[in-house]
Amino acid sequence: MGKALIFNRMLAIGVGLIGGSICLAAKKKGLVSHVLGYSRKLETAHEALKLGIVDECIAGPGDANLRNVDAVVLSIPVRQYKQVLTQFLPVLPPNCLIFDAGSTKSDVAVMLNELEPQFPGLKSRFVLAHPIAGGESHGPSAAVANLFEGRNCVLCPLEQTSVVGLKKVEAFWTGIGAKLSTMNAMDHDEMFGAVSHLPHLLAFSYVASVLAHPKGADFMKEGGAGYRDFTRIAASSPEMWADIFQNNSAALLNMLGAFEANIASLRQAIESDDRPALERILGQAADYRSQWKQN
Amino acid sequence: MGKALIFNRMLAIGVGLIGGSICLAAKKKGLVSHVLGYSRKLETAHEALKLGIVDECIAGPGDANLRNVDAVVLSIPVRQYKQVLTQFLPVLPPNCLIFDAGSTKSDVAVMLNELEPQFPGLKSRFVLAHPIAGGESHGPSAAVANLFEGRNCVLCPLEQTSVVGLKKVEAFWTGIGAKLSTMNAMDHDEMFGAVSHLPHLLAFSYVASVLAHPKGADFMKEGGAGYRDFTRIAASSPEMWADIFQNNSAALLNMLGAFEANIASLRQAIESDDRPALERILGQAADYRSQWKQN
Repeated sequence: MGKALIFNRMLAIGVGLIGGSICLAAKKKGLVSHVLGYSRKLETAHEALKLGIVDECIAGPGDANLRNVDAVVLSIPVRQYKQVLTQFLPVLPPNCLIFDAGSTKSDVAVMLNELEPQFPGLKSRFVLAHPIAGGESHGPSAAVANLFEGRNCVLCPLEQTSVVGLKKVEAFWTGIGAKLSTMNAMDHDEMFGAVSHLPHLLAFSYVASVLAHPKGADFMKEGGAGYRDFTRIAASSPEMWADIFQNNSAALLNMLGAFEANIASLRQAIESDDRPALERILGQAADYRSQWKQN
Repeated sequence: MGKALIFNRMLAIGVGLIGGSICLAAKKKGLVSHVLGYSRKLETAHEALKLGIVDECIAGPGDANLRNVDAVVLSIPVRQYKQVLTQFLPVLPPNCLIFDAGSTKSDVAVMLNELEPQFPGLKSRFVLAHPIAGGESHGPSAAVANLFEGRNCVLCPLEQTSVVGLKKVEAFWTGIGAKLSTMNAMDHDEMFGAVSHLPHLLAFSYVASVLAHPKGADFMKEGGAGYRDFTRIAASSPEMWADIFQNNSAALLNMLGAFEANIASLRQAIESDDRPALERILGQAADYRSQWKQN
């Protein structure tokens, strides 16, 4: 066991792009000695095993090998957390640390509040995390060990989160190359509603609206580099993003309202040939965006 | 003179990213013997001269060197065409070929109709073109000889366009590496309203609407790869895009209406927790976009 070791036996629930990449990175960096993998679909867990992402597959909560697990990482749609935790928590060691990689955080805090009476202490040993990484590819075959290198990971500790648990999860994410930031779950959801969820909603909606045009599919074949980049995120998983839109609906719809108001101003400026208004709105955006640099 | 030569003396009106790249490419490929450059701002023409983009600067329509020009390429905002042509046409040789590189085409056709009585034959010697290339950088210093290599260039000949002139302009664009397609001006504007102008409008509007949020600029600092690509085109020239939005307002606002209706459906699906509707709209977009390949 190397000195980098953080967890002995880590259970990965979800072994797709995110979960699989977490496992590959943790193994490569020597942060874990043994990785167990679970997926709703057994063939996905088997694929992860074949790809060397996990060392062992778990068929379900009945598996005896779960007894010595000291960490669990959830990389599944947030809507599935509650059901999965309800199944697995009764058989996991009571001091086992749990962390996640979901894109929304307030809803996870609410879910933990709901489960806390049934599983006392759950909130102290659950660390909310959101690595800012991903892509349009899905499944274990898309996983890579360097997915989190140099990428941000936002931690949203609750008041009850154990300091020791938080330090371990911080060391874990840092160990696989992520840069950490910390904020509360509400701020997180407002920020990512604005800079991630809304752009995804707009990109999906733009492609769907052009597709609905009789010649829309033919039009899009002629799209250039602008079209390509603007719509790249519209190839993302519909199931995952439907979850995110539903789970962060308050912050998302609030930002969407501001966008709709801005679009109405632009429409008005174009319809009334109001060149100063048009240049003012476009100029603000261009000034900001041309100076923006990725963190 | 090489056998590739198409024009002896070409006047470039506008020597920025597009005009400058056309000149560099044409010189590199030996399609022109001598390039004259004109810009509204004299220092821009001088910069182009220093960068080897043009061989000679023209201060204005009074310049005697204009007499032997056999081709003019317009790479300026479409809204300036009429004024510039009205100034230059009286001093240009009557058989001199003219072509452009603007992003909208129906408005150019209308402008040519308006000028035709004053300059008979203008419509026969003006070839409407739109190279699908560009970027967020502006000015002569952004110009590169390979900007059009492998990129599409749409030609929109009018009924009156001379066959000989059209063939020369086709040979010119092909000679600098572009792939040609031909369609009428209305179809062009509808297509590019959908796949280029609308995405630009949405990207500008999205950035402007987030900026208007009290914490919006801070939020955007945390944007990841999705944010980066989705907003890249919002760094484009506000002046150029205000022109395009105004010049192609009919097709653009029509497509915007379809987008607004789709956004309303998505909002409705999120507000009413209508998961099937949400997945249907996102799924259509993701299915199409994940199979899309750039032409």
